[in-house]
Amino acid sequence: MATLNDIGVAAAINILSAFAFFLAFAILRIQPVNDRVYFPKWYLKGLRSSPLANGAFVSKFVNLDFRSYVRFLNWMPAALQMPEPELIDHAGLDSAVYLRIYMLGLKIFVPIAFLAFTIMVPVNWTNNTLERSSLTYSDIDKLSISNIPTGSRRFWTHLVMAYVFTFWTCYVLKREYEIVAAMRLHFLASEQRRPDQFTVLVRNVPPDPDESVSELVEHFFLVNHPDHYLSHQVVYNANNFSKLVDEKKQIQNWLDFYQNKYERNPSRRPSLKTGFLGLWGNSVDAIDFYTSKIERLSRDISAEREKVTNNPKSIMPAAFVSFKTRWGAAVCAQTQQSRNPTIWLTEWAPEPRDVYWENLAIPFVFLTIRRLIVAVAFFFLTFFFMIPIAFVQSLANIEGIEKALPFLKPIIEMKGIKSFIQGFLPGIALKIFLLFLPTILMIMSKFEGYISLSALERRSASRYYFFQFINVFLGSIIAGTAFQQLNNFIHQSTNQIPKTIGVSIPMKATFFITYIMVDGWAGVAGEILRLKPLIIYHLKNFFLVKTEKDREEAMDPGTIGFNTGEPQIQLYFLLGLVYAVVTPILLPFIIVFFGLAYVIYRHQIINVYNQEYESGAAFWPDVHARIIVALIVSQLLLMGLLSTKEAAQSTPLLITLPVLTIWFHRFCKGRYEPAFVRYPLQEAMMKDTLERAREPNLNLKGFLQSAYTHPVFKSADDSESDITMEEWEQEPALIPTKRTSRRCTPLPSKHSGS
Amino acid sequence: MATLNDIGVAAAINILSAFAFFLAFAILRIQPVNDRVYFPKWYLKGLRSSPLANGAFVSKFVNLDFRSYVRFLNWMPAALQMPEPELIDHAGLDSAVYLRIYMLGLKIFVPIAFLAFTIMVPVNWTNNTLERSSLTYSDIDKLSISNIPTGSRRFWTHLVMAYVFTFWTCYVLKREYEIVAAMRLHFLASEQRRPDQFTVLVRNVPPDPDESVSELVEHFFLVNHPDHYLSHQVVYNANNFSKLVDEKKQIQNWLDFYQNKYERNPSRRPSLKTGFLGLWGNSVDAIDFYTSKIERLSRDISAEREKVTNNPKSIMPAAFVSFKTRWGAAVCAQTQQSRNPTIWLTEWAPEPRDVYWENLAIPFVFLTIRRLIVAVAFFFLTFFFMIPIAFVQSLANIEGIEKALPFLKPIIEMKGIKSFIQGFLPGIALKIFLLFLPTILMIMSKFEGYISLSALERRSASRYYFFQFINVFLGSIIAGTAFQQLNNFIHQSTNQIPKTIGVSIPMKATFFITYIMVDGWAGVAGEILRLKPLIIYHLKNFFLVKTEKDREEAMDPGTIGFNTGEPQIQLYFLLGLVYAVVTPILLPFIIVFFGLAYVIYRHQIINVYNQEYESGAAFWPDVHARIIVALIVSQLLLMGLLSTKEAAQSTPLLITLPVLTIWFHRFCKGRYEPAFVRYPLQEAMMKDTLERAREPNLNLKGFLQSAYTHPVFKSADDSESDITMEEWEQEPALIPTKRTSRRCTPLPSKHSGS
Repeated sequence: MATLNDIGVAAAINILSAFAFFLAFAILRIQPVNDRVYFPKWYLKGLRSSPLANGAFVSKFVNLDFRSYVRFLNWMPAALQMPEPELIDHAGLDSAVYLRIYMLGLKIFVPIAFLAFTIMVPVNWTNNTLERSSLTYSDIDKLSISNIPTGSRRFWTHLVMAYVFTFWTCYVLKREYEIVAAMRLHFLASEQRRPDQFTVLVRNVPPDPDESVSELVEHFFLVNHPDHYLSHQVVYNANNFSKLVDEKKQIQNWLDFYQNKYERNPSRRPSLKTGFLGLWGNSVDAIDFYTSKIERLSRDISAEREKVTNNPKSIMPAAFVSFKTRWGAAVCAQTQQSRNPTIWLTEWAPEPRDVYWENLAIPFVFLTIRRLIVAVAFFFLTFFFMIPIAFVQSLANIEGIEKALPFLKPIIEMKGIKSFIQGFLPGIALKIFLLFLPTILMIMSKFEGYISLSALERRSASRYYFFQFINVFLGSIIAGTAFQQLNNFIHQSTNQIPKTIGVSIPMKATFFITYIMVDGWAGVAGEILRLKPLIIYHLKNFFLVKTEKDREEAMDPGTIGFNTGEPQIQLYFLLGLVYAVVTPILLPFIIVFFGLAYVIYRHQIINVYNQEYESGAAFWPDVHARIIVALIVSQLLLMGLLSTKEAAQSTPLLITLPVLTIWFHRFCKGRYEPAFVRYPLQEAMMKDTLERAREPNLNLKGFLQSAYTHPVFKSADDSESDITMEEWEQEPALIPTKRTSRRCTPLPSKHSGS
Repeated sequence: MATLNDIGVAAAINILSAFAFFLAFAILRIQPVNDRVYFPKWYLKGLRSSPLANGAFVSKFVNLDFRSYVRFLNWMPAALQMPEPELIDHAGLDSAVYLRIYMLGLKIFVPIAFLAFTIMVPVNWTNNTLERSSLTYSDIDKLSISNIPTGSRRFWTHLVMAYVFTFWTCYVLKREYEIVAAMRLHFLASEQRRPDQFTVLVRNVPPDPDESVSELVEHFFLVNHPDHYLSHQVVYNANNFSKLVDEKKQIQNWLDFYQNKYERNPSRRPSLKTGFLGLWGNSVDAIDFYTSKIERLSRDISAEREKVTNNPKSIMPAAFVSFKTRWGAAVCAQTQQSRNPTIWLTEWAPEPRDVYWENLAIPFVFLTIRRLIVAVAFFFLTFFFMIPIAFVQSLANIEGIEKALPFLKPIIEMKGIKSFIQGFLPGIALKIFLLFLPTILMIMSKFEGYISLSALERRSASRYYFFQFINVFLGSIIAGTAFQQLNNFIHQSTNQIPKTIGVSIPMKATFFITYIMVDGWAGVAGEILRLKPLIIYHLKNFFLVKTEKDREEAMDPGTIGFNTGEPQIQLYFLLGLVYAVVTPILLPFIIVFFGLAYVIYRHQIINVYNQEYESGAAFWPDVHARIIVALIVSQLLLMGLLSTKEAAQSTPLLITLPVLTIWFHRFCKGRYEPAFVRYPLQEAMMKDTLERAREPNLNLKGFLQSAYTHPVFKSADDSESDITMEEWEQEPALIPTKRTSRRCTPLPSKHSGS
């Protein structure tokens, strides 16, 4: 059992490392040479230009103004200053609503923590069950429910508090859902004309021997939506084509690299070996080699382009169909077209930059099979990943290490090291395992055939959450104490689970506190340093960059990363709700996490991240549902815990809690969820009418013409398409902030330009 | 343990009683006086008229043609002769598809039984585990899985058979779903013009201080569906009004009764007492009393009618909105109208006679609360109903009775009585309990606010199925053996349940065999006798009937009763699938049930039942889903059973079965279910175009004018409305069958005329 002292050491370590990160960040970010790493968003908006262009040579790279080092935390208030409406303008609704999740954490847990510390902690503290028992215990346990004697009447406090916490959480959740739904509707209503408002994606166009896909689509919609159909664009299978284009880009990078090398050292032409990894084989002139390779690829690319556009086999049975009005598109997206429900499938087209083009080529029949395969694979991934984690954790407790490696005993028993291992190691082991995961989950989602990046990220997020729930939360609670329990647990009954877990929960509080500090404090503080993009940018800058445009492409602003970030937040919601009644001492740690993460991510969203798509906060129903799940889990575990404490009269009262919570969820689902999945006809009609009045001569067909062309075609003939892109990507005039505002080419997002 | 002998006695009793029912039916149905009880469908179709009108006096009432008594089972082949398309014309698609459920039972279980008896029974029989064990056992157990020694390799047979049975069931289910979906689409396509094809029900019209509901609806749809909106009808809260009308009808019955009495015995005017139940109080002249009462009621009715039509408060915030085209209605029904998803809710209007008018008056806000209340009430109903059943059943085994009432011991121990009790009593006790249930469940569904009779019946059916599953199936298996097990079971773990049940299953085979015989054989055979309608008809005929029209109203053809009938069938599917692998001897009993019920219900549907609505087989997805549930339950229980038999290597193989089954279900859901809930635009457009070409001058507004008037208004001004009713209820010309075909007033269904 970790003592308060151990936790103190761990807290000190983590606070120190967080401060170290902040200090490093403070120093690095004011160096002009890092400007594109720490403020890429402003470059992409065209509101900031390279500081390398002017000033003395040294001050181009290093900040010599020592006063700026003193105010090393001044980014924090700056991050909080931008008001929300401006933030939505600046970074999109997705980002603004994403920040609200952290806010939601504060709104839920600050009052809960206040209540818990004024009411529950005194009730727990004024017992002496643990003192009289023969168990080893720490001061933390004295504050927790473990300190209440079995069968005590004091459990009524916990029961009442469980109700209060549930009602408070539900109240905050409902209010937040209401606000976010209103924000979404307002955002959609105030938005400028966008191609996806008029466009529907049609999949599974049935094959026809007499007509091409394009003709078939045109005829079908002319017949069935005669008053509304405008035009359509068929989908090409350009996966091969874009692979070639990507390859060319990579080779071009190598060519640039060698050309730079040659320019710096003109005395010696660079050469390379053609064999495996450049380790052996014939030595050739590198520049000539890559130049000829690029020529060959360019030929291949134009041949492939020819093939894709002319061969009817490369046309997929799918099309983007555009309508004359938003009303027509809303109708088509929400209705069934054909009597056979598996053909002529219509759904809202995602934003053009949100489309995941590779998956449009998957025929519908394979989708069900793919989903089955992924479901089975995910099951195995989830339940067999558990074994290594449990193994590492069982090693990572002191007794385990001492047993496994007895010669280490004298070192481990040193006080500082012992605390370090106990405070740090279990969290780290878990974190390393989890680093590999999001990529695997994203691949799974892609294999399942979702057709927009936003859907892919949402799907991966829910998988990741489930994984974390099973492996981090349950895995740590059960397998962490004793590895051999795992096997028993599988053969144990399902009903017993709440009891087993409920009993272990108070004992694992210290573990989770250290986990929160490592993952939530130091980890989040590390996020602001952007170590990986920093290194990559400087490498690229040194080896590849020749023009200002190259330098712009070397920037990697990154995105929020909904698929990893949101499940992480959800884990904290889960921990907070579960421990709120059991061990309230955990709550301050979680509040610090939410506060810190809010500030840091707000800063990053303002200055760094560049969202690849704008889904209009379509993820909120998922966020809401997962907090509800956490709430229900916390109620079930409390029930399990109390039933072992012989507070059995509480069970019926506790059972009503999940029933009410589920009912609340269904109520919210009916009330708010449609705002996130459907598009009301009234709204569509209103916008159509307004538009017709304002711009009676609008050439909609021209506007929609090339909106849904595969980006690989666009990047090939850059000049024309960039204009169309710009036309609809233009944001409303920005309020200039403190930062220097000089216009530079705004970049399209990473993916649409790939 | 019941022996083969006991089962033989029970079988004999049940077969005899089934034959007694058939014999009684054969005699009663050919008596002219019962003609309206046994052939009401033909009267309602206008293809048969009263036999009382012609012929000699005696032969009006009693059939004197003795030859017709000889061929007393000849209705059976007659029932099978009508081909399915004609049956759909005659009785509607609902009835025809309902019969297919019985057929489906035969299609699934006949091949399964064949395989089980050729492969599994020999494998089970050629062991001697039971002989060597100290357990008491019967010959039936020797044919079951109980006879295989623990850990034997022979369990592979059962495993392979479980796979074969699952695949066969899924194959048949898929084919049936396909056929039924095609039948539904064909039925809808070939149907004549019906008001519900053009009409959408709008609920939760938001209140507006300046406009009435009617104006509001008109404006909203003129704005948002400008090209398609035709007209609308607001919904009046006429619940009070129709209550008064019903009351008047009842008083009218009493008046008729006394008038008849007076006519038969003119010497004495009938009198009655005005006090409680006519037992005390002042004695008054009955005819005068009721005449004045009717006059008073008529005044009240016209006052109430005035109030309903003129008072804006009696207008509900709901309306039936009609469109110019099917396309327009399909679009409106499938889309969301307003940004607030809880107002302007649109859904397909049910058929006019399918509307459950009382519930249209419920505001939407109360619906979620009502659902919560009903869910909780249903939970208590389900789980506390269990106690009395278990109590009766524990009494109903021999040892229980002997213990409770020791003085009965000598009587019970007599051989015949013992068999009788064991074979009959448990089934009867259960059946009596279940008789009360459907009414309660229907009340629950009505309270929940469903707005069509078909939806009410479907909802009640699924509740009834759940109830039967918990109480009849699980209740009998677990509590039946020992009442005290119930309590243990609640405190037992969920994971243990498949094992506990799996182990008990082979032991309860004999109970379920007798249950099938009582409920499935004798019960179904009793259905054909129609004892209750027979008695009520004759009572009404004697006391109330004055004119031919009265006699027609005295007929009670009844309906299939989907809410009770379908769950009963589903219980047999469940039993069949669960016992197919475990105790195959049960299968022939189930097959006999399906065959017998098929013939009897086919006869009843042709000659008796008059459906109140036509939902176009909208219930099939429910039927399909429940068979899938039964399949999964059978797989889980087999897993539980085999895991106790130490055939543990089979567990992973058995786990894949439910996974595959669930996947199959999702596949079917995606592929076929939309045909039952949505209306494809292509279809709508096709029918619209055809109609426009055929009848360019159609007055659709006139056609739809009074389609959705509350039936109570219609019954008040009968003459006009009957014409409109008739217009769209007219069936295509019927092929006259053997029966005498003389035209008589066709009646509207019971509910629309109430």
